[in-house]
Amino acid sequence: MERLPGLRDFYPEPLPHTDVWSADARQYIFDKWRTTAKRYGFREYDGPPLEPLELFTTKSGAEIVGQLYNFEDKGGRQISLRPEMTPTLARMVAAHERNYKKPIKWFAIPQLFRYEKQQKGRLREHFQFNADLIGETDPAADAELIALVIDTLRAFGLTHEDFVIRLSSRNAWQDFYQAGGGELAHEYAFFQIIDKLERASPEESETKLAALGFSVAAVNAFIEAGKPTAELESILNNLAARGLREFIKIDYQVIRGLAYYTGVVFEAFDRKGEFRAIAGGGRYNNLVKLISGGKVDLAALGFGMGDVVLLELLKARGLMPKFDSPMDVFVVIEDEALRNISLKMVHDLRAANFAVEYPLTPAKADKQLKRAQELKVRFTVRAENDAYVRIRNAKTRDEVVTGIAGVANHLS
Amino acid sequence: MERLPGLRDFYPEPLPHTDVWSADARQYIFDKWRTTAKRYGFREYDGPPLEPLELFTTKSGAEIVGQLYNFEDKGGRQISLRPEMTPTLARMVAAHERNYKKPIKWFAIPQLFRYEKQQKGRLREHFQFNADLIGETDPAADAELIALVIDTLRAFGLTHEDFVIRLSSRNAWQDFYQAGGGELAHEYAFFQIIDKLERASPEESETKLAALGFSVAAVNAFIEAGKPTAELESILNNLAARGLREFIKIDYQVIRGLAYYTGVVFEAFDRKGEFRAIAGGGRYNNLVKLISGGKVDLAALGFGMGDVVLLELLKARGLMPKFDSPMDVFVVIEDEALRNISLKMVHDLRAANFAVEYPLTPAKADKQLKRAQELKVRFTVRAENDAYVRIRNAKTRDEVVTGIAGVANHLS
Repeated sequence: MERLPGLRDFYPEPLPHTDVWSADARQYIFDKWRTTAKRYGFREYDGPPLEPLELFTTKSGAEIVGQLYNFEDKGGRQISLRPEMTPTLARMVAAHERNYKKPIKWFAIPQLFRYEKQQKGRLREHFQFNADLIGETDPAADAELIALVIDTLRAFGLTHEDFVIRLSSRNAWQDFYQAGGGELAHEYAFFQIIDKLERASPEESETKLAALGFSVAAVNAFIEAGKPTAELESILNNLAARGLREFIKIDYQVIRGLAYYTGVVFEAFDRKGEFRAIAGGGRYNNLVKLISGGKVDLAALGFGMGDVVLLELLKARGLMPKFDSPMDVFVVIEDEALRNISLKMVHDLRAANFAVEYPLTPAKADKQLKRAQELKVRFTVRAENDAYVRIRNAKTRDEVVTGIAGVANHLS
Repeated sequence: MERLPGLRDFYPEPLPHTDVWSADARQYIFDKWRTTAKRYGFREYDGPPLEPLELFTTKSGAEIVGQLYNFEDKGGRQISLRPEMTPTLARMVAAHERNYKKPIKWFAIPQLFRYEKQQKGRLREHFQFNADLIGETDPAADAELIALVIDTLRAFGLTHEDFVIRLSSRNAWQDFYQAGGGELAHEYAFFQIIDKLERASPEESETKLAALGFSVAAVNAFIEAGKPTAELESILNNLAARGLREFIKIDYQVIRGLAYYTGVVFEAFDRKGEFRAIAGGGRYNNLVKLISGGKVDLAALGFGMGDVVLLELLKARGLMPKFDSPMDVFVVIEDEALRNISLKMVHDLRAANFAVEYPLTPAKADKQLKRAQELKVRFTVRAENDAYVRIRNAKTRDEVVTGIAGVANHLS
């Protein structure tokens, strides 16, 4: 029986097959995400992977349904697996924001689902690090969040030579659009043309822009000038104070596709341009109000960083550790008469936080030693009698004989 | 907008409302599960939360569908959110077992879903620690797995006065049934009567047992005698060698409801009998063969431990820590001229693994200190000028002034 298309199995390393993913690498990534977020004072939250369909259509319009993993449940409810975390966050914040001091700084590591038209090998889910900062309009909040993106990537060993944050602003584009006489009703259409500028043909962009009273030349001149607004200037200064200026580039080509962004937007890319965006985010000051039906009005901003592109990048840069050596100690049981005392030792070493393996059933000593080698344990330990044990350091091959109660002291 | 019934939101502590769950407590539980499993040499795996419906009906029959959170997807596939992990595990093992040495020792922490008839407050999902040992028939494997259950619960501070493992055996019941002349065709029906013995009325059990040629008296006598089989005896001796004998009770009332168990079965209960089972498991030697369509035949056993009952028990025994003090340091910015140097300090302290908070925007010093107090930070730090900082220990109220580069050295 096969797993469903576009979903992933995660196996322990070394991996049995190129078709599957590493559970160890996944946990390594989650741990870095979690520890970095906590250092920044972000607290963890989570919601259900299933939500009412309406939560997502309220935010993104009915057209989103074509991309959702959605269903009718047995109670006749229209529901969907979550395609993104922000609507759930907005729902949760709206429900209980009074109990939390502002700004609220929260993060989550949800699994997200999209049911797009089947393409071979195309994933229908990924895990995403989401961090959001709610209840602060000052650009200092944008700087804090962008610093978190940068330090999260640095926690994996990536440097300013590996990635860049392309920083932009919908406000800057709004000013450009209004100064050029653009009508408010077509503003989002204009943003969408900008969003597609890198991928669309110049002719196509020209035609579309002309219909709104603009030209590719004028748009490109604005992008090339790349003059930061006062707001972006403030963010740049804040990040410079932290020593993070070299990670940032003002790049007005970035505008983000989603309708709900209201101010600063940004994306993290590898410098070589080999991969899709590593992370992306921005301000969405109206969303909490929208989701709460007008009851709660809080400024907000956030970002998402997926596990798939990040893992590709880390592998390409040689920054993923191997996880094929998780055991510390192998307890060899050569004499079955010493099994019970060996079991006690196994138990005591585990209680002392060592990862310990041993033969469940009688086996020849050389077979046991081979297994110890395969497991790449740091030490083999064998009871010589009911009072003494021999410890062998697998790397140095040093051996020491010690009283059975003192084994743990020799394992470092 | 409300979340779907039976699903949970997880908030940071302190909790805003009795209606929601603690994301911090969840992570605390996951961490203990994960570290204990690793000490025992279990490796992490995971599968998708969605599987083909057939995976579950193959294992448990068509009647299981009534309890599943199942759907038809847009591709016309019958699919289901996973109600348990074992079928996914069997599928994954069957696909790639050749690449792993036996016995395979794997664990996972999946979220599991059941769509049962709506009862007020009844959950439709939970998280479950699953550990399985595959490819070993010897009772030493059963002992290893049961030791893991015990040490997992002990990792939370629970002792043998708090919980007991009720150890039983389908083989023992099989022997009893066959010795009493029971027909093979009705064996599972007999097991189900035993499973319900504690909850059903004596009259009902008597009638049902009589139809199979047995009596409540004979069954109760067998249970009361509680004579361990040679297999159980071997498990008891193994656990005694580890110093874990006092956690175990032979209890033939336990037989586990599911059809696929084939040998030893067990459940963990709180000694006071206040809660439902904390964990349960057993041998399922035929399941991998069944799921793989006969291609892979491996003996197996495993257990599941849910987060909900465990959390109830830990709370009742006063064993859940509070998670309302996650920050180490608050950097006070009294003079805005020192904001940039303060930001640098915030950044450096975070880089040194401290969890650091600071005022995003200008605020009065007493308001900042109040916030530091609310966050229960261990230290407040404030730049006196661009060269010196004053560090205050929140507990001892000791203050020290030091050069700005040496702050981290004073925070312990």
